[in-house]
Amino acid sequence: MAAGRFLLRRLRASFRSPLRNALVDAPHARAMHDGGGPRRLCIEGNIAVGKSTFVKLLMKTHPEWQVATEPIAEWQNIQAAGAQKDGTSKRLGNLLEMMYQEPARWSYTFQTLSFMSRLKVQLEPIPGRLLQAEKSVRVFERSVYSDRYIFAKNLFENGSLSDIEWHIYQDWHSFLLQEFANRLLLHGFIYLQASPQVCMERLYQRDREEEKGIELAYLQQLHSQHEDWFINKTTKLHFEALQHVPVLVLDVTEDFSENAARQEELMGQVNTFMRNL
Amino acid sequence: MAAGRFLLRRLRASFRSPLRNALVDAPHARAMHDGGGPRRLCIEGNIAVGKSTFVKLLMKTHPEWQVATEPIAEWQNIQAAGAQKDGTSKRLGNLLEMMYQEPARWSYTFQTLSFMSRLKVQLEPIPGRLLQAEKSVRVFERSVYSDRYIFAKNLFENGSLSDIEWHIYQDWHSFLLQEFANRLLLHGFIYLQASPQVCMERLYQRDREEEKGIELAYLQQLHSQHEDWFINKTTKLHFEALQHVPVLVLDVTEDFSENAARQEELMGQVNTFMRNL
Repeated sequence: MAAGRFLLRRLRASFRSPLRNALVDAPHARAMHDGGGPRRLCIEGNIAVGKSTFVKLLMKTHPEWQVATEPIAEWQNIQAAGAQKDGTSKRLGNLLEMMYQEPARWSYTFQTLSFMSRLKVQLEPIPGRLLQAEKSVRVFERSVYSDRYIFAKNLFENGSLSDIEWHIYQDWHSFLLQEFANRLLLHGFIYLQASPQVCMERLYQRDREEEKGIELAYLQQLHSQHEDWFINKTTKLHFEALQHVPVLVLDVTEDFSENAARQEELMGQVNTFMRNL
Repeated sequence: MAAGRFLLRRLRASFRSPLRNALVDAPHARAMHDGGGPRRLCIEGNIAVGKSTFVKLLMKTHPEWQVATEPIAEWQNIQAAGAQKDGTSKRLGNLLEMMYQEPARWSYTFQTLSFMSRLKVQLEPIPGRLLQAEKSVRVFERSVYSDRYIFAKNLFENGSLSDIEWHIYQDWHSFLLQEFANRLLLHGFIYLQASPQVCMERLYQRDREEEKGIELAYLQQLHSQHEDWFINKTTKLHFEALQHVPVLVLDVTEDFSENAARQEELMGQVNTFMRNL
C-alpha cells in the first residue's frame, strides 16, 4: 500500500510537514464543540475499503476509546419483537439483501432502517467510563450524514430511489437532524481512501453472501460520492456545522492489516489529528 | 343525529349526570402535565366522520384556541424543494392517491410521510399568543398516536404493510416517541364516533377525487380500530402515559353541520371536559 498520503483539500502538504493545513477548519470546529464531553469521530469510506480492520487497529491502539460499529447484522437479520412459543424470535428477513436484489422496491425502506439505526447509535447516552475519562473519544463507523450524502444520494442518482422517495427522505432527515442538532455533531471525520478496484478485490476476499451481487460500477459510484464530499467539496451539505468538520484523509490502498510499520504510521496520523481537534 | 351520548369505557353515565366518570383518568392525566403551557387536545375519528366540520365549530366557539389541521394537502401535492427556472416548484406526486391505488407498494412510504408531518405539527414551538393566554389550548387533528394505532396498524392487518415494514415502522416510531416524550403528550382525546355507513354517506357528499376508490370495508376496518382503542380498550399501547389520557366520546351520527342546538350541546360537552382536565 502506497505510503500514507495526507491530502488536504487542494493544498498538497507533504506528510513530514506540520499538519497545519489538515486542521484548517479545526479552530472553527473546536469552537462548535466547547460543550466538553468526548470528542466524536466518524470513520467513512467505501464498501470493503477496510473500515472494520481499521476500527480493530484503533481499538488495539486506544482501548479507552469507545467504538460503535455499523449495525449491519441488524439489517441482515430483522427479528420480530417478542418471542414465539418456542422462545425464539421470528426472523422477518434480510433487508440489506432485499435492497441489493430489488433496489427500486426496497431502497427507501432500507434507508429508513439504516438512518434510524445510525441515529440510535449516535444518540446513545455517553457511557459512564467515558464521562470520567479525561480525553475520551467516541468513534462511529459511518454516520447519519453518510446515510444521506453517500448512500441515499447515490440510490437516487442511480435511479433506485424515486424523486418522491428522495424528497421525503431528505425532508425528514433535515427535520430530525435539526431537532437533535447538537447531540449529533462530530469533531472530525477520518476518510479511508482507496480506489474502487482495490475495494472490489477486498470484497472478493471477504466473500460475504449478500455482497455477491455488488458490481464494480456500484463501488465506483460510492467512491465518487466520497470523493465529492471529502476531497472535491462539491456535495451540497444542508447543515452549516457539518461543512466545517475537519477531515483526515488516510490512503489505505496498501493493505495495512498485517503491516506493523504502516499501522504505526496511520495511528501516528490519527493521534496528531486528534491532538489538534 | 341521536342526542350526544357520553360513553365512558364500561360505565354508562347518563348525559345529565356529573361527568365525573368521564374524567376517571383526569387527575392522573393532569398530574402528567403540571408542566403548565397550553392544554393539548387531539380530535380523532374515521375518514369523513366530520372532523373538519367539528374543527370549524371549535374555532368559532373558541377563537383563542390554536388548531393544527391534518396536513392532507401536503400528502396530495408533494413538491420538490427549490424552484424551477420558471419560478414554480416541480410537482412530484400525490402520495395519498398512490397509497390508495397501490397499497402494498406505497403504504410504508406514505406512513413515514404522514408520521413525520404529524410529528412536525406536534413539535412546533408554542406561538407567543398562546404562551401569554391564561387557559390556552392547542387542538390537533389526529396525532402521531393514531398514525400508528389506527392507520399503520390497520395497513398491516389488511396486508398492505409487510411484517418487515410494520416491524421497522414500530421500531422507529417507539424510538422517536421516547426521544420526544414530553413534547408529544396530550391532555385529552375527543373521539368523534359515527358508524362506517354514516361516514360513507358523508364521503360521497364531499366527493374528493382521491377518495373515489375508498370502500365501505376500509371504513369498517378503521371504525373497528377506533373502537378497539377508545371504547373497548383492547389496542396494545406501547406508551404508559398514553394509556391514561382521558377520552371524550362524542356521537356525531346526527349531522350537526347545520344544527345549532346540536352544536351547542357538543360544545357544552367539550367545555365541561376541558374544565376537568
